[in-house]
Amino acid sequence: MTTERGELRIALWQCEPRPAVPETNLDRLDAAAADAARRGADLIVTPEMVIPGYDIGAGRARELADPPDGPIARRVGVIAGRHRIAILYGCAELASDGSVYNAIRLVDAAGTATATHHKTHLFGQLDRRMFAPGSARPPVVDCAGWRLGLLTCYEVEFPELVRSLSVRGADVVCVPTANMIEYDIVQDVLVRARAVESQVFVAYANHCGSENDLVYGGRSEIVSPGGAVVASAGRSPDLVIADLSRAALDDSRRRFPYLDDRRPDLYT
Amino acid sequence: MTTERGELRIALWQCEPRPAVPETNLDRLDAAAADAARRGADLIVTPEMVIPGYDIGAGRARELADPPDGPIARRVGVIAGRHRIAILYGCAELASDGSVYNAIRLVDAAGTATATHHKTHLFGQLDRRMFAPGSARPPVVDCAGWRLGLLTCYEVEFPELVRSLSVRGADVVCVPTANMIEYDIVQDVLVRARAVESQVFVAYANHCGSENDLVYGGRSEIVSPGGAVVASAGRSPDLVIADLSRAALDDSRRRFPYLDDRRPDLYT
Repeated sequence: MTTERGELRIALWQCEPRPAVPETNLDRLDAAAADAARRGADLIVTPEMVIPGYDIGAGRARELADPPDGPIARRVGVIAGRHRIAILYGCAELASDGSVYNAIRLVDAAGTATATHHKTHLFGQLDRRMFAPGSARPPVVDCAGWRLGLLTCYEVEFPELVRSLSVRGADVVCVPTANMIEYDIVQDVLVRARAVESQVFVAYANHCGSENDLVYGGRSEIVSPGGAVVASAGRSPDLVIADLSRAALDDSRRRFPYLDDRRPDLYT
Repeated sequence: MTTERGELRIALWQCEPRPAVPETNLDRLDAAAADAARRGADLIVTPEMVIPGYDIGAGRARELADPPDGPIARRVGVIAGRHRIAILYGCAELASDGSVYNAIRLVDAAGTATATHHKTHLFGQLDRRMFAPGSARPPVVDCAGWRLGLLTCYEVEFPELVRSLSVRGADVVCVPTANMIEYDIVQDVLVRARAVESQVFVAYANHCGSENDLVYGGRSEIVSPGGAVVASAGRSPDLVIADLSRAALDDSRRRFPYLDDRRPDLYT
């Protein structure tokens, strides 16, 4: 359901990680989705690997990895359908060939799985110890009448990926992430640049708090295609909500005609 | 000449435009180059179209366009050689086929022309009324022991171009520009993002003041590959100077391994 104003109301669930307790995290997601739905959100976006936890090591990542139609997928589908809200969430996925991926999955407000993305650009040894790299381009998928592009964490730092999503029709790029506090430059500069240069909204949902030796930076944010931070969190748990306006997107694309002015013949 | 510290000392000449008086502007450039050289700079970067002025209309742009080895080129060569400083400057260029380009030209500290770039991404009707679009990729060229990538104004807003320069070995991307005050988002976000995501220094030299109906934003800046603004101007005329450190560049590239982590197979 889109809002009456033809807008998309999006919620970012910024939370502290609870590593290796997936049932607890599913319960927490259930509560956050209920809260977001009560506040009229069409979609809630979680941090990266929110269900199993992120810094859990290769053994645990495999042990807690969910098959594409596994119990985690089914439970999140039930949560989405009960609260009538789309959910983009992060988990480890176990493929039929035995590979473990850093996955994000989109479930619509009827509880139906509509897209999965396997992180293609792995971040350092943290990712590489746990995951195989995805080999498919990030998806663009319909959600509540909008076109969503999906990326995971480090991927949004590569302009080529957001560009590719925008060229393929994305209006909003949603990014579950687990960005450490020493990389605030991502929220300050890179996420905002992606929104402007590729003329999309960007919704960046981060962890806060700590997990083993990692300290996450929070500061989840929703950025307009003009580069404005229209809603954001601080360093603490929060539910960030904003309404995305199609009219604002259209206006911005007239002001910044980057997509029309590209010259791909010069980029090879 | 590089500095004793193995650094590149770069100067940005932020000035008000004086449209359609090229002799006056060559004299002003002479004075700015003398000042920069006295302060130890290896290279001075001017705003876009600094010699003829920018908002001069198609007739004047053609009338004041310099052939590749024309009188403006010769005069700037003399200025560079006398002050022993490399100069990257903007002017209109008249090609042998009669086309007029929005050009930037690099002259080394011996007064020898080493590179020319014709703006490929034209900005709105302002550019399109005056100029043919360039058809060659922006150059990467040696200067004072560093590898410089050259772009003009609007081009730096396209991540693909800075990426291409970095992949081809650029350490610094130099950008003569004429950015209006309503587009401060470029200095706030896009220039800094380019530096971080492609791991280069970026030197962005803007006009200030006004020219006909245009009001330029100044705020010329030199940005590190970590995204820090290491030197910048306000809205008024200024000569911005910074030392670029190769050690800082190497350190930053270890911290942000974007160039190694790219996956071009996924970007087509």
